[in-house]
Amino acid sequence: MQTLQTTSLRVADNQLFILDQQALPQEKRWLDASTVEALVGHIHALRVRGAPLIGLSASLLLALLAENGHSRDQLAVALDTLRASRPTAVNLMNNLDRMKQALWQEDFVPALVTEALRLIEEDKQLCDAIARAGSQLVKPGSRLLTHCNTGGLATAGVGTALGVIAHAFAAGNVNNVWVDETRPLLQGGRLTAWELGELGVPYQLITDSMAASLMAKGQVDAVWVGADRIAANGDVANKIGTYSLAVLAKFHGIPFYVAAPQTTLDPHCPNGEAIPIEQRDAREVTGVAGSFGAVQWAPENAQVYNPAFDVTPAALISGWVLDTGVVLPEAVEQGVFKSSAV
Amino acid sequence: MQTLQTTSLRVADNQLFILDQQALPQEKRWLDASTVEALVGHIHALRVRGAPLIGLSASLLLALLAENGHSRDQLAVALDTLRASRPTAVNLMNNLDRMKQALWQEDFVPALVTEALRLIEEDKQLCDAIARAGSQLVKPGSRLLTHCNTGGLATAGVGTALGVIAHAFAAGNVNNVWVDETRPLLQGGRLTAWELGELGVPYQLITDSMAASLMAKGQVDAVWVGADRIAANGDVANKIGTYSLAVLAKFHGIPFYVAAPQTTLDPHCPNGEAIPIEQRDAREVTGVAGSFGAVQWAPENAQVYNPAFDVTPAALISGWVLDTGVVLPEAVEQGVFKSSAV
Repeated sequence: MQTLQTTSLRVADNQLFILDQQALPQEKRWLDASTVEALVGHIHALRVRGAPLIGLSASLLLALLAENGHSRDQLAVALDTLRASRPTAVNLMNNLDRMKQALWQEDFVPALVTEALRLIEEDKQLCDAIARAGSQLVKPGSRLLTHCNTGGLATAGVGTALGVIAHAFAAGNVNNVWVDETRPLLQGGRLTAWELGELGVPYQLITDSMAASLMAKGQVDAVWVGADRIAANGDVANKIGTYSLAVLAKFHGIPFYVAAPQTTLDPHCPNGEAIPIEQRDAREVTGVAGSFGAVQWAPENAQVYNPAFDVTPAALISGWVLDTGVVLPEAVEQGVFKSSAV
Repeated sequence: MQTLQTTSLRVADNQLFILDQQALPQEKRWLDASTVEALVGHIHALRVRGAPLIGLSASLLLALLAENGHSRDQLAVALDTLRASRPTAVNLMNNLDRMKQALWQEDFVPALVTEALRLIEEDKQLCDAIARAGSQLVKPGSRLLTHCNTGGLATAGVGTALGVIAHAFAAGNVNNVWVDETRPLLQGGRLTAWELGELGVPYQLITDSMAASLMAKGQVDAVWVGADRIAANGDVANKIGTYSLAVLAKFHGIPFYVAAPQTTLDPHCPNGEAIPIEQRDAREVTGVAGSFGAVQWAPENAQVYNPAFDVTPAALISGWVLDTGVVLPEAVEQGVFKSSAV
C-alpha cells in the first residue's frame, strides 16, 4: 500500500503504525499495529481511540494483511476479531461491513486496499463537511464547552466536534473553549488541551465537576460533543460524562450539539437502551496511568463502577451535526435516522 | 491543656498535631501544627480540611498558644491570621468569633482553653444530632450518593453527611453508597472511600462524571452532601461539583440533602452570590499529587480554571439537616436562616 499519514495513523513499508494516545502529550510515540493482536490490544488500552479512528485503523490493517498474503478465510476471521474489539462505537462495525463486501469480491486484495483508502479519504471529507455545517451554528464571541477528544487524533481529518470548534475559531467566532478533563482517562486534559494548544485556540482546562457552575455563571454558550453511536431515535452513546453535560445544558437553557459522521448512525439500533456499554477496569478510577507516570490513590480494596460510555436521550440534544448538514429534533422525531441515508 | 484525640486532631504535651489528609489513605502521618504559620500552611494545602475541622483546629491552636505564654495582643494577631486562612468556610469565622470573646475576658488563658474544648465537645454532639436527624430521612434499602468527604476526618465527631449515612447504615437502611471521587483533590476517592471501608459500609467509587447516568438508571435514591457555608436564603457553598449534583438530582426527581452543624450558617450573608469562592492552583487540575505520588498529564502551558467551591441555590435543596433537626424549603423561604438561632 502507498505511504499514508494522518494525525494518528501511519502506513509505511506495508506496516501500520498508530500514535500512542495514552502517551500523549508527554511523548509522541508511534507503535506498530501490524497484527490483529497488536491492534486489538491498542484499542482495548485506548492507545488507538476515537470512534471514527478505530474503524479506520481496523480497515487499514485488513488491507495490509491482504497485501501481505493472508487468505480470504484468515481475513474473515481477522475481520470478526477486530469487529468485536469495541462494543459501543458503531463506526467500527460500519467500516468493517464495507470491508467485508470488498473481501467477497473476486480480486479481494486490491478491493480491500481501495476500500480502506476510500474510507480514509471519505473520513477526511466527512470531517470537513461536519466542520462547515457545525460552524454555522457558532455565534460570534462564543465560549464553547467540549468533552473527551474529538479532534484530528480521533479521526483521519480535522475531527468532529473539535473540527467544528477549530473551523469556527478560524472564522473568528470562538473566544474560549472550556475543556472538560474527562475522567477517568483524561482525553480532555491530555489530548484536547494538546490539540487546541497546537491549533492556537484559547482554552481553559476544568475538572468535569466544574461545568455546571460555569453554566450557572453564563460562561458557556454551547456544548459540543462527538458520538460513538447514534440510535434510530436520536439517542447518543458517547464518552461517560456526556449525558451529565446534556442534562446540565438543558437545565441552563444552553444548546447541546452532537457532531459525528454518518458512519456513527445505527438505524438498526432502536434507542439508547439497546446500545451495549463497555465496563472497564477498576484501576482507571482508583488512579491514573500514562507516559506521565502511574499513581493509585484510592484504598487498595476499593469497589469501583466504571462504565466507558453513557447514553444521552434525543430530547436533550439541540442538533445532530452530520456531514450532510444539521439535523434538528423535529426531523429526528419524524424518523430521519431510521434509514441509513440521511 | 489535657490530652485530646479525634479522628484527625491530637493535642499532646501542649502541642497540636493534625492527621495529614493529603497523605491518606496511603499513609497515616501526624504533623505538628503548633504555630500559626504551620497551621495556615496545612489549611492552604488541605492537609487540614473539612469546614468544621478547620475552625476547631484554629481554636485549639489559639488555646495552646495562650497556655504557652503568648500575650493577648499576639493572640489577637494570630486569630486574625487564622481567620483569613480559608475564605469560604464560615465555621472558621464562627468558631473564632467565640474564641475572640474568650480572649477579651480578664482571665483569658483558661477562658480560651475552656472555649476551645467546649467547641470540640459541641462539635461531637452536633454531629451526633445531625446523624440522628438525617437518618430519619433515609428509607430502607437506600442507595445514597455523596461528594467530597464529610466524615470523622472533617469534624471532631462522626461527621455531617457521612455521619448520617453511617447512622442510617447502622440502622440497616443503606444498601450501597456511590462515592464521587471529587476531583481535583480526590477527597471522595481517597478519604470517603477509606472511611466507609473502615466503617464496613458497602460503597462503589465513581468519577464525578458518572453520577448522572446512575441517576438515569434509577440507582440513586438520595444525594447527601455537607456545606462550607449556608447563606440566609438557604443557598449553600460547598466543594466544587456539589451544584452539578444538585441540578442532576433535581432533573431526575431525587432528593438532595445538605447536612451541616449550625456553625455553618451565616445569617449575615444574604445569598450565594455574596460567598467568596477561593480559586486554587492550576497544578491541582493539570495533575494530581499526594503521598501516593505526583503526576502531571496536561500540556505544560495549559490554562486552567480551578474554583474550590460552587454555590447551590436553595431551590435545588430538599432539606437542610442541622443538629436542631431537618429544615424544609418552606421554613427557609420564610426566613428561618436569617437569624442565628434556628
